[in-house]
Amino acid sequence: MNGSAYGKAEGMKATLIHGTHDIRVSSDVPDPVIRDDTDAIVRVLRSCICGSDLWPYNSADDNPQGDRIGHEFLGVIEEVGSGVRNRTAGQLVAPFVWADNTCDFCAQGLQTSCRHGGGWGSDGTDGGQGEAVRVPFADGTLVPMPGEPDDALLASMLTLSDVFSTGHHAAVSARVRRGDTVAVVGDGAVGLCAVLAAKRLGAERIILLGRHTDRTDLGREFGATDVVAERGDEAVEKVRELTGGDGVDAALECVGYVEAIRTAIEVTKDGRLVGRVGVSQYSDIPLGVGEFMRNVGVHGGVAPARAYIEELLPDVLEGRIQPGRVFDRTIGLDEVPDGYRAMNDREALKVLIKP
Amino acid sequence: MNGSAYGKAEGMKATLIHGTHDIRVSSDVPDPVIRDDTDAIVRVLRSCICGSDLWPYNSADDNPQGDRIGHEFLGVIEEVGSGVRNRTAGQLVAPFVWADNTCDFCAQGLQTSCRHGGGWGSDGTDGGQGEAVRVPFADGTLVPMPGEPDDALLASMLTLSDVFSTGHHAAVSARVRRGDTVAVVGDGAVGLCAVLAAKRLGAERIILLGRHTDRTDLGREFGATDVVAERGDEAVEKVRELTGGDGVDAALECVGYVEAIRTAIEVTKDGRLVGRVGVSQYSDIPLGVGEFMRNVGVHGGVAPARAYIEELLPDVLEGRIQPGRVFDRTIGLDEVPDGYRAMNDREALKVLIKP
Repeated sequence: MNGSAYGKAEGMKATLIHGTHDIRVSSDVPDPVIRDDTDAIVRVLRSCICGSDLWPYNSADDNPQGDRIGHEFLGVIEEVGSGVRNRTAGQLVAPFVWADNTCDFCAQGLQTSCRHGGGWGSDGTDGGQGEAVRVPFADGTLVPMPGEPDDALLASMLTLSDVFSTGHHAAVSARVRRGDTVAVVGDGAVGLCAVLAAKRLGAERIILLGRHTDRTDLGREFGATDVVAERGDEAVEKVRELTGGDGVDAALECVGYVEAIRTAIEVTKDGRLVGRVGVSQYSDIPLGVGEFMRNVGVHGGVAPARAYIEELLPDVLEGRIQPGRVFDRTIGLDEVPDGYRAMNDREALKVLIKP
Repeated sequence: MNGSAYGKAEGMKATLIHGTHDIRVSSDVPDPVIRDDTDAIVRVLRSCICGSDLWPYNSADDNPQGDRIGHEFLGVIEEVGSGVRNRTAGQLVAPFVWADNTCDFCAQGLQTSCRHGGGWGSDGTDGGQGEAVRVPFADGTLVPMPGEPDDALLASMLTLSDVFSTGHHAAVSARVRRGDTVAVVGDGAVGLCAVLAAKRLGAERIILLGRHTDRTDLGREFGATDVVAERGDEAVEKVRELTGGDGVDAALECVGYVEAIRTAIEVTKDGRLVGRVGVSQYSDIPLGVGEFMRNVGVHGGVAPARAYIEELLPDVLEGRIQPGRVFDRTIGLDEVPDGYRAMNDREALKVLIKP
């Protein structure tokens, strides 16, 4: 099937990153077209800005042409290629990365390492912060979602495409078990979702490390039983104090700086794991002879959200969890540049986009 | 019970470390006596030199008084304190660290973090490279072993006190599963035991990274299907080549240098773990953004041998595995200084001591 048959001349609105602090919304980005017969075109209903989008926001090289950006979105299938078997126009769907969902990595629930997959904006795919997206491997990538959800439910469903699934991945990577005491390092949207995920998995005590009261307040509503505003050695001391000196059964690192992972490691109980999901801004992790004697380890990384969506969806649909509460600002596409600024200035916790 | 009642005036032979490359055997070390009523005195039948003993051998400060050394031994209980319930004189036993085996850490199989335990030679306990040892928490620390074993079986039983259990811990920490492809980094005694442990757990393909042919030959007999003599980037390339580019399901790091753990990480398949048991001579582990995107992690540390002995013992007793084959030299106590030298010069793989 030749993609050109689906081309539309008018173009669409989409977000481009042109350099550090240089986010622009263009109105004449080519409409996506089916390129491979396993593609689908998804009209974006909701998108958002991810904490990880702030890394390129703060460091991208100048690029006059601009790169598409955005990887958290939820939308309605507009059309599917002739090779798509189990997805149809009109379905509400959420993707994260794109993945065939049939290779051995996908079968093991690691769609982020799919042998044929990739990230939005790479290999000529679209970014999620726009009006529409060409989705490769529609059968594998897209998870159908039911119904005609209201705004709040849509927001929570959107978090499955990344932020809540990422919090869940932190908890899974650290092997959180029922009854555990858990520390969450970081009170950003991922950290708050990690609190919610740990609670959902049965953690009994959840210590949230963060200093922004408005955020840690939401963390308490999500299940945090203690908040530690201290940082570094003082934070470690505080968490050890709260846990009778032992540290926690699992530490979820949701920041990405080496100080955060050091704190996470140091508050972890002997024999246990840190689950890291903060995009690492470091090259080395402090796991020396002290941690060797304590048998403390680190696992985790980019979250294979696709592997978790089906498991997490019922709790969202039935309202048992409301991860969408991390959105504290809603904007249109034209306001996306200011949305980045607001998140970067910590004026907003997480910004929802209604294209 | 007052320990002095058990004191013997004559003294015994034991190994002391006085500084770098300064190992001495003294003949007038005080005989061990029961100090706490939960103690036992164990007459050492077999002891050995551990690769980890070479770290102080190569770095200890001068110490005219000398410190007791040695932590791998097997012996016969000579007497028990009045509070010892389930161990009796005459039993053949193997210990590793000492541990109450009742606290929460012990209950979870992490006796190396026992709330009341410690290592041989610390807190006034004896080292294992001597004629006899006072053993704290005899009920918890000592694992009884059956029979009147021959020399070969005794050697294999001795490895349960550390070296084979350590190889097993590497495999457990890296979550080796039946059918896995495993890489073992290091062809020392621990590395060879890790090969044997991975094989025992059902690994189908075991790639041993080592360059000493006499050692890797034993590794092949233990179950290694491939040997990679290259190091660093070349070793990584070779392992990736052998695994269709993917890397291994589990990598067991049995050296302790940062180069070794870097190699282990780089040959590990996306989503999987490195099990580290080489005593870390580094303070940081290279787990940067590349490994973050690949979801590769690191777990492990000092091996809680006590947790594994009962599981591993039947396979040793029934001859299904012969980890004692890592010993390629047997010496008496007087020759211990030369035994250290020989291991340090890689003239001997692992030295068995018959006091």
